[in-house]
Amino acid sequence: MQVYLDNNATTMVAPEVVEAMNPFFTELYGNPNSLHKFGTATHPALSRAIDQVYTALNASDEDDIIFTSCATESNNWVLQSIYNDYIKNGEKDHIITSEVEHPSILSTCAWLEQQGVKVTYLPVNEEGRVEAHVVKSFITQKTALVSVMWASNETGVINPIKEIGEVCKEAGVLFHSDAVQAVGKIPVDLQDVHVDFVSMSAHKFHGPKGVGALFIKNSQPLSPLLHGGDQMSGRRSGTLNVPYIVGMGKAIEMATQNIEQTMASIRAKRDHLEDELLKLSDTFTVGKREHRTPNTILISVKGVEGEGMLWDLNNAGIGASTGSACASEDLEANSVMLAIGADSELAHTGIRLSLSRYTTDEEVEYVIEHFKKAVERLRAISSSFAKQAPTA
Amino acid sequence: MQVYLDNNATTMVAPEVVEAMNPFFTELYGNPNSLHKFGTATHPALSRAIDQVYTALNASDEDDIIFTSCATESNNWVLQSIYNDYIKNGEKDHIITSEVEHPSILSTCAWLEQQGVKVTYLPVNEEGRVEAHVVKSFITQKTALVSVMWASNETGVINPIKEIGEVCKEAGVLFHSDAVQAVGKIPVDLQDVHVDFVSMSAHKFHGPKGVGALFIKNSQPLSPLLHGGDQMSGRRSGTLNVPYIVGMGKAIEMATQNIEQTMASIRAKRDHLEDELLKLSDTFTVGKREHRTPNTILISVKGVEGEGMLWDLNNAGIGASTGSACASEDLEANSVMLAIGADSELAHTGIRLSLSRYTTDEEVEYVIEHFKKAVERLRAISSSFAKQAPTA
Repeated sequence: MQVYLDNNATTMVAPEVVEAMNPFFTELYGNPNSLHKFGTATHPALSRAIDQVYTALNASDEDDIIFTSCATESNNWVLQSIYNDYIKNGEKDHIITSEVEHPSILSTCAWLEQQGVKVTYLPVNEEGRVEAHVVKSFITQKTALVSVMWASNETGVINPIKEIGEVCKEAGVLFHSDAVQAVGKIPVDLQDVHVDFVSMSAHKFHGPKGVGALFIKNSQPLSPLLHGGDQMSGRRSGTLNVPYIVGMGKAIEMATQNIEQTMASIRAKRDHLEDELLKLSDTFTVGKREHRTPNTILISVKGVEGEGMLWDLNNAGIGASTGSACASEDLEANSVMLAIGADSELAHTGIRLSLSRYTTDEEVEYVIEHFKKAVERLRAISSSFAKQAPTA
Repeated sequence: MQVYLDNNATTMVAPEVVEAMNPFFTELYGNPNSLHKFGTATHPALSRAIDQVYTALNASDEDDIIFTSCATESNNWVLQSIYNDYIKNGEKDHIITSEVEHPSILSTCAWLEQQGVKVTYLPVNEEGRVEAHVVKSFITQKTALVSVMWASNETGVINPIKEIGEVCKEAGVLFHSDAVQAVGKIPVDLQDVHVDFVSMSAHKFHGPKGVGALFIKNSQPLSPLLHGGDQMSGRRSGTLNVPYIVGMGKAIEMATQNIEQTMASIRAKRDHLEDELLKLSDTFTVGKREHRTPNTILISVKGVEGEGMLWDLNNAGIGASTGSACASEDLEANSVMLAIGADSELAHTGIRLSLSRYTTDEEVEYVIEHFKKAVERLRAISSSFAKQAPTA
């Protein structure tokens, strides 16, 4: 059996999405910026995709949603352009983010620090959550931007975006949220919260890899990251990736149109899986369930290194992760667990299991069985665990 | 009949390319950075794609070829990072480019000028070519980069890249070429010419829109444009777009493996089409044929506005262009024709016809017939042409 439980890293493209994209490779292949029929024939599908994204996020007609090549581009765009517009050529000098952001935020902030920007990396609470009052306490007159992720890729923990938005609005500070792990997993209503910029990526909700978007509240100014032929109203140049934009529209529609029902179904499977795994001794999960996206578990199994666990699961046909796929190859300790105060040894025990709407009950039972077997095998050969374990 | 003669704007994705991409949407959908089988299962196809690109360009193992989301990104990356690495944080203050570059170069240069960079826009000769001795005459001690396109999107005119490369090498100045209109259309041998950075885009050679690459000679330093999860050896972050990378590999292999033969076939059709159209009175084409990519004609028909011509051709099912698709919607005068000294009225007469390996003889005959009809009709109603035309 093959079980894919790494849906926070990437997802299978939904067959309906592939079907929606297919005509735009060999039939309707024109450049949407061309004036002839080959170009204009793509317009109805593009308009529809744009509508699907606006509807899914409850964006207003006054807002801009600009397609990009991925959330990494969207995140770089916001941070680099806020630097160019308000810091390098302005009065501000400060950006606030959190310790647990995705590498595309943290690495860009590290680069901005080299350019002289002051960056505050907010601490998180014991669940790995960024608290609004903490954000407030670090805002100064010189703060150009607050950037806090909507939900964590590692733990699924959802930040209090509405409260943080209110804090930023009150202080007159721009607010960006990397919503890659929220869009398609939980309701995201962009008229209900005050947020200026929101990044998202199609491949996290059964769309293709290589297309994302940036939401820009009230179409406010933000200089482009990619200059050129003035596609997307001059906000993001480059020939439009018609198939993937169409695919993203279809994918976000599918992911959000019955989201409460889908969430409930995924949550039930996740909770059952989590309940069963927590029956193992010396295990804990990070973040309260009610604060998490319904598909994610970050579990720590004392005495079992994450990489060993991945190996055993992989041999059983199960795809899981020790955390962000971006860092997978480095075998690093889980960064969120470090941020919430776990020691390095414990942070190396983190295993992330992330489900999708395609995960079946049968797969969950299979994972429970093989996860338990793996823990048993690995603890038996674990010197650190054996030393601490009581003699049976 | 439908005839697509706008292949410099974008191309149909080859059916074999679609076939090569298909498994990576719903079957082999893992994130290549994941350690489990779902991730590693993508590696053989990615390796193959990389090999296909290196082979097609005769790149050396010491060189880097980094996949991007498009040539606009590649062009922005080079220009912005040269600014960051050598101008903002260095001793240089000057970039040289030409008047006839793609908007992704010209707009980025305009933005760099706002940041204080000195930019020289080289004049072109009567064919629209950038001459090596002209490049040489503008290089100073402060020049950080020369960026000259390999071949023109508007005219197909090929620049003397080898000679310009020698000039740059001798002067110790970095050299970038936007080769979007060269790769897949003419042989591009990156060990035969001295060029530090080369941009390309798959959708110009029957690959998908939304994937491109940047060649970096000897893997030399160039700070990233997209910071993040350290994909692509840290040079370009963002989850790899596996299907499109695989598609780009297949597309470049197909476009280059019999390039001499394919060129000869396209050239024969193009030359026949051009010969026939030039039989019309008061017409001329821009650039000597031997200096052009084999698929491109930029023809001026006196007394016939480009937009009117496009309209008539479009009604006959023929897709053509007045120039860059990026500028299509603005109905601007052809920028290359302006650069070579045409007046604005004449520059508004430019029509670009760009063929592909899928263009058939039958299609060419159809275009000749309908092009002639359109000229006849439009000249009959053209006040400016009627005034000048001799009475019959």
